[in-house]
Amino acid sequence: MKMKRARIVDLLSTPDFNRKVCVKGWVRTRRGNKNISFIELNDGSTVHGIQIVVNVVKLGEDSLKSITTGACIAINGLLVKSKGEGQKVEIQADEIEIYGIADPSVYPLQKKWHSLEFLREIAYLRPRTNTFGCILRIRHHLAYAIHKYFNKQGFFYFHTPIITSSDAEGAGSMFQITDLDIANCPKTKDGEVDYTRDFFGCSTNLTVSGQLEGELGALALGGIYTFGPIFRAEKSNTPRHLAEFWMIEPEIAFYDINDNMDLAEDFLKYIISYAMKYCKDDIEFLNNTYNNELIEHLNFVLSNRFVRLAYSEGIRILEQSNEEFEFPIYWGIDLQSEHERYLVEKYFKCPVIMTNYPKDIKSFYMKQNDDGRTVRGMDVLFPRIGEIIGGSERESDHQKLLKRIKELNMSMDNLWWYLDTRRFGTAPHSGFGLGFERLVLFVTGMQNIRDVIPFPRTPKNAEF
Amino acid sequence: MKMKRARIVDLLSTPDFNRKVCVKGWVRTRRGNKNISFIELNDGSTVHGIQIVVNVVKLGEDSLKSITTGACIAINGLLVKSKGEGQKVEIQADEIEIYGIADPSVYPLQKKWHSLEFLREIAYLRPRTNTFGCILRIRHHLAYAIHKYFNKQGFFYFHTPIITSSDAEGAGSMFQITDLDIANCPKTKDGEVDYTRDFFGCSTNLTVSGQLEGELGALALGGIYTFGPIFRAEKSNTPRHLAEFWMIEPEIAFYDINDNMDLAEDFLKYIISYAMKYCKDDIEFLNNTYNNELIEHLNFVLSNRFVRLAYSEGIRILEQSNEEFEFPIYWGIDLQSEHERYLVEKYFKCPVIMTNYPKDIKSFYMKQNDDGRTVRGMDVLFPRIGEIIGGSERESDHQKLLKRIKELNMSMDNLWWYLDTRRFGTAPHSGFGLGFERLVLFVTGMQNIRDVIPFPRTPKNAEF
Repeated sequence: MKMKRARIVDLLSTPDFNRKVCVKGWVRTRRGNKNISFIELNDGSTVHGIQIVVNVVKLGEDSLKSITTGACIAINGLLVKSKGEGQKVEIQADEIEIYGIADPSVYPLQKKWHSLEFLREIAYLRPRTNTFGCILRIRHHLAYAIHKYFNKQGFFYFHTPIITSSDAEGAGSMFQITDLDIANCPKTKDGEVDYTRDFFGCSTNLTVSGQLEGELGALALGGIYTFGPIFRAEKSNTPRHLAEFWMIEPEIAFYDINDNMDLAEDFLKYIISYAMKYCKDDIEFLNNTYNNELIEHLNFVLSNRFVRLAYSEGIRILEQSNEEFEFPIYWGIDLQSEHERYLVEKYFKCPVIMTNYPKDIKSFYMKQNDDGRTVRGMDVLFPRIGEIIGGSERESDHQKLLKRIKELNMSMDNLWWYLDTRRFGTAPHSGFGLGFERLVLFVTGMQNIRDVIPFPRTPKNAEF
Repeated sequence: MKMKRARIVDLLSTPDFNRKVCVKGWVRTRRGNKNISFIELNDGSTVHGIQIVVNVVKLGEDSLKSITTGACIAINGLLVKSKGEGQKVEIQADEIEIYGIADPSVYPLQKKWHSLEFLREIAYLRPRTNTFGCILRIRHHLAYAIHKYFNKQGFFYFHTPIITSSDAEGAGSMFQITDLDIANCPKTKDGEVDYTRDFFGCSTNLTVSGQLEGELGALALGGIYTFGPIFRAEKSNTPRHLAEFWMIEPEIAFYDINDNMDLAEDFLKYIISYAMKYCKDDIEFLNNTYNNELIEHLNFVLSNRFVRLAYSEGIRILEQSNEEFEFPIYWGIDLQSEHERYLVEKYFKCPVIMTNYPKDIKSFYMKQNDDGRTVRGMDVLFPRIGEIIGGSERESDHQKLLKRIKELNMSMDNLWWYLDTRRFGTAPHSGFGLGFERLVLFVTGMQNIRDVIPFPRTPKNAEF
């Protein structure tokens, strides 16, 4: 078929009827009788299919036999206003070409309700469903909005390394990378693995955060952001954990904790409103199919100013509440999800940015307050999912940073370069991390993080 | 300093003089006498510094002592038209705050010429140099242009997995990933590594290409693209090889090889012209400092239509040329860089897209031509660097694909899901891969691929 293919999303919104068009896509359903057949065709450009009307007598019954759910076809026909209900336009087929059949006796995606659990097992096919089409389009638009936002701010996309010889947080389970034959590792005289013979000449891991390298970028280019894959070798089989996920980490020179909070709020509101504008149909589909509070939650974030709340004040509010919590409340605890949700959903009824955490529950690199016991960390707390962003102003004073590292008995052998940034032209700076899948969960309203990434990596699963 | 910080790139182009401004950045140089001091300040937003004029008597000589190359400072002052040559505006300082000193006796980046080799050793500091500032800003704008282009085409950013249990090309050196204790691996009764006890329950590697998973996306969403890190465990210590690099792989349903070639040409022209527009100063700096043919090369690509050239015709031209080549020419060879450059730089004098390669030098998944000996692969050949893009129309026929796999004695145990796309609703489709660093090399005019990524990973080097 030589006519230029039109995307269905464009045809559904065109005011320009009564013209010949060509569409190509996958059959969702076919129904009808011996005279007329209706095909719902989807090409992935939108959750909505376009209706193809086929004159069975004219095109021949035989040509329709293999047009079953999942088959791939091309249609030339006339685009007309639809007489039927439920759609605005339809195509009267002149010509049909079959690219690929999908034998109903073996094709797993038939026209019926498939559970999300079942679809997870056939992750290689699930992008062809309406649900995952919606999720993946939203995922795209969120990613695009993130680049657009930071580009507009004048921040530069900075590729921090995936393979690393240092551990960004002084903790965390990491995957090891090697090109040694692990069945038969070369050993040193002491019986240790001889890493001088490994590809990089040392032991290497998959990164758990790009922040420390990101700081190097910020202290040179002013403002940077990362957007790349991050890995955790935690054997947590939960709806909230992935071994491989994507993370966004802006880092900005000359930003203090207040600038950082303002940025986080503005950023989240921008990307969520972008998604609501450009993924309207997809969000509506998910709202109506899975989670009828979804749009409400999104508007909740957009229409409220995020409350700034010191940790100590948060503890006071929780202590004085009459709520029964599973975990006890006292100054020094790491807040649990139940506490965060109480503050956001019941007490303030708006997103909360909590700051000035006890230093003992936060990372070594956070800027120390003068009180000697708190640091300028910040967590952005959302309804339903709790923490969506974690960040801080960074300790820019070389001596204070060294002292804290000593207190924590950390080895900084592999991080001398990080400390050097505080020796050479140090500057106040801040940043935060946003787990991309956490964001996609929030904007799609899905419950399981394995449903918002194309090919989830979890314990015992690296398929496709 | 409570005044809002202005970015130097904005001040250098403002028509709005004689107002108080605040700038923050790193000192490139300071010179002057006992009455007046000139500081060149850079904040990473542009390659150009802004000149700060300091009345030494007014601000006190002592306050200036630690303002040496690399120090980080904040300035409040009056933005005025410059009387000096070489700059349009300058700032008359009212107030200076020192954020961080950079002791000249230890700070490695002094005001002198540093070789690229030396800067590679201090990769953690080199973003602070003019050269790497330019490269990294260009890198950002190219990445942004890529997202912008595909978004406009209606293609969706699709995250293919980094950790994989399959080898995309049936070849290639891969890094292994594990959370086993490799010094003491669990073994099966047969003495093999017991991968059932590894994190994913099987042997896993870092991906060498997202293409195969990308095809799953394209055959559901219509058009997708990937942009993520790719890994090769090849011990090649050359200016063209990295163990970790970034790759862009669009994959589009219903595109044939001609659509694919048109897309590749339009795409490359778009992103290169975007860079020339948004990175004008940076490209000029690199042109004038390292490679005075850079801008010429970029214009060469923009102003010429890319020639479409069948491999067989290319061989004929090479055979009939009077050029002396190191490697012999005959039908069936994989072209060498010298051949590609002859065709591009001497014969056609324009970029070339070569197609219809002998099947034996290309991958199993390329669409087979009717002649039984060629496939619909395509390489885009550029001046100076040779192949910048490699792609193909994919074999969409299940039987032909199976037959080819058998011919090649490939094991497809881990790729049943890939074959399934040809069983269920298969469609003609095409795609290509662009090595991002190869592109950045071309647009920056740099010679060594280690100089166009922030933290290069190469044999024996995973530092920072």
